Amino acid sequence: MSTEQDTSVTSLPLGFQWGAVKAGIKASGKLDVAVAIAPKTAKAAVMYTKNQVVAAPVTVGRRHLQSTGGRVVAVLVNAGNANCATGQAGIEACVQTCVAAAETFHCIYDEVFPSSTGIIGVPFPAEKVIAALPAIQTVLGSTSDHAELFAQAIMTTDTRMKTARAVIDIDGTRVNIFGAAKGAGMIHPQLGAPVGPPHATMLVYLFTDLAAETEELNKLLAPAVEQSFNCISIDGDTSTNDTVLLLASGASGTKLNERTVEPFANALNLVCGSLAHQIVDDGEGVTHVVTLHVTGARTPAEAKQVAKAIAHSPLCKTAWSSADPNWGRLLAAAGYSGVTFDPEKVNIRIGTQPVFEMGMRAPLFDEAAAHATMQEREYTITLDLGQGNAECRFITCDLTAEYVRINADYST
Amino acid sequence: MSTEQDTSVTSLPLGFQWGAVKAGIKASGKLDVAVAIAPKTAKAAVMYTKNQVVAAPVTVGRRHLQSTGGRVVAVLVNAGNANCATGQAGIEACVQTCVAAAETFHCIYDEVFPSSTGIIGVPFPAEKVIAALPAIQTVLGSTSDHAELFAQAIMTTDTRMKTARAVIDIDGTRVNIFGAAKGAGMIHPQLGAPVGPPHATMLVYLFTDLAAETEELNKLLAPAVEQSFNCISIDGDTSTNDTVLLLASGASGTKLNERTVEPFANALNLVCGSLAHQIVDDGEGVTHVVTLHVTGARTPAEAKQVAKAIAHSPLCKTAWSSADPNWGRLLAAAGYSGVTFDPEKVNIRIGTQPVFEMGMRAPLFDEAAAHATMQEREYTITLDLGQGNAECRFITCDLTAEYVRINADYST
Repeated sequence: MSTEQDTSVTSLPLGFQWGAVKAGIKASGKLDVAVAIAPKTAKAAVMYTKNQVVAAPVTVGRRHLQSTGGRVVAVLVNAGNANCATGQAGIEACVQTCVAAAETFHCIYDEVFPSSTGIIGVPFPAEKVIAALPAIQTVLGSTSDHAELFAQAIMTTDTRMKTARAVIDIDGTRVNIFGAAKGAGMIHPQLGAPVGPPHATMLVYLFTDLAAETEELNKLLAPAVEQSFNCISIDGDTSTNDTVLLLASGASGTKLNERTVEPFANALNLVCGSLAHQIVDDGEGVTHVVTLHVTGARTPAEAKQVAKAIAHSPLCKTAWSSADPNWGRLLAAAGYSGVTFDPEKVNIRIGTQPVFEMGMRAPLFDEAAAHATMQEREYTITLDLGQGNAECRFITCDLTAEYVRINADYST
Repeated sequence: MSTEQDTSVTSLPLGFQWGAVKAGIKASGKLDVAVAIAPKTAKAAVMYTKNQVVAAPVTVGRRHLQSTGGRVVAVLVNAGNANCATGQAGIEACVQTCVAAAETFHCIYDEVFPSSTGIIGVPFPAEKVIAALPAIQTVLGSTSDHAELFAQAIMTTDTRMKTARAVIDIDGTRVNIFGAAKGAGMIHPQLGAPVGPPHATMLVYLFTDLAAETEELNKLLAPAVEQSFNCISIDGDTSTNDTVLLLASGASGTKLNERTVEPFANALNLVCGSLAHQIVDDGEGVTHVVTLHVTGARTPAEAKQVAKAIAHSPLCKTAWSSADPNWGRLLAAAGYSGVTFDPEKVNIRIGTQPVFEMGMRAPLFDEAAAHATMQEREYTITLDLGQGNAECRFITCDLTAEYVRINADYST
């Protein structure tokens, strides 16, 4: 058994077809409606945003998964309009697109899994999605080109497509995972058990040809999401439409069992980790990707709480934008995280440079060396709390004037 | 009895002397060491940051107040160095300045209340503060000019001095309050009962000639701070040195009692409210001051929790910078605040313009009118949760490219 990243066309999971067209929803006129078709036997697991406010496709998607018990035949995604805060009319518009897609792709309407991303609060143009369905049917296919069309069509402010693949080789049988994601702003996913109604900003679709039941997939998806998408933040804004879908076609003939679960879980973690990293790397205005490695915590939750306070501190984030080794801001943010600790026991390193120890500036702190580390596109800041064995790796980025420009210019 | 704002020289509280000099701590060469002298009988109440990491003067100040039971004769403040994350050496340096000030101003060392603000993690130049003390003694005085020297010397990135006054007229006797504050960045004060050790960014000194005991003053200060300084945020970064000191000289001859407590509390609230507003208004890079009025909440704490999520949302803050009535971002931030609510019952107004109701864009939403309101320097956003009678007014500001520039350029 081995887990490896493979970019060859054969590493795409069997049993799926992908396609996308231009339906005129994005003002740019680019690809904006994407479809993925799975076999009737496919099983899905999904995690949605924990935001109290959710978009119509989240409400409808939850309902569909509940009524089918996790069966998904068609994934229908549009970019350009989030169908959020659109009231009952938005729900009805979403249902109409599912009904039309069911007809086109020969399934039941609740076997359609809808997603939307884009502007919030604008009436949803269901008629454009519906009118595009026949054209999508003619472009469906199973090659890398088809899968990439899907990945391109779901982009909004993303500057590049985000995909990842993994292959698990089990006694000569291959199980494949292909993941496609979008997201560049309003990124601080907090995915969990469904809560209330989401504005979709991070969308992730994970396709595999493993054979597994929804319940089994849910058990694998939750920890994979917790360590990846729930451990990244661009701006601390948790979206109303964040969605991660794991869809298993079963077409590899390999079942999830005692022998396959571990290699599959590892491969799923790799794919989720890669996509999560790509999302931060393509964050709005990002010039530095910073991994916060919080160690020596009492619990993983406390480690994450400290990392999040730093990741959301405008003062830390602006210092990173200029490669300023201002460790005082790191320490101050940790201090207001709500986690109790003794500052005298805290140890901070930027890359390999010691910056803070024994309650003060590290004697060996070399400001020029720390500054040089921070000029790299990507580096790690380690903060050891000195009071336990728990840890967390959290990926975040700097805050730049470009981020402000992008989001101040965004028009309602 | 009447409460009024009065800017005449006679409205300064009796019994105090103020002064400030240039001690060479600020790189700019401006006034940087300030002193206020109170009579031996003066009583103090103080609230410090809840940050786990606190500066040396906070540790020392707590110790002094505990040992004197709330007696403060000399307030000693420097700007330009926060004396934070400076280890045991920082504590000793702070104590040295208190001992020297006690000698100069004829009191006991623990009757000196130290404060520092400025850069974090840089060895504290106690010798500069000590060398400046004789000069300060020669410039002490009780006029508005003296009080304003004090207010100027405590400034760091502030572009203007922040002071407020109130006069309470009780049966012909006047009780005066004078407040001086500093703070422009790292502003999201969370003041409370002393927790651990603080990098001072918001400093507030409230002087009054009322006669009151420390315990009585504490009871008045906590609610006044809760409604003012604990309800503002510039960047969501809670500093390590935030300090609010209320010092009562008793020189008016009027005691705090059943008849005076209410007008005094009202006047104290006014002064704190004015200073809190001035701090946001002078926030780094601020072009718009936004009051978030959250109503219809189950509890005041939930109202504040929703307001804080919006106040700390980079997406909301950047939209405000361009007067963009992007209410979807307001709703999304409320949605991830952690407070449960039904989006269908939420009502949002920008100024007097309805923008969101019944789960969707308000039928009467006039985008141009909302945009016009948001072009004002200052306006109110009202968010009614529709599930209770509790409310909160929280003052915050926009996030601009200028904020990023200021904080990216700040050198360690």
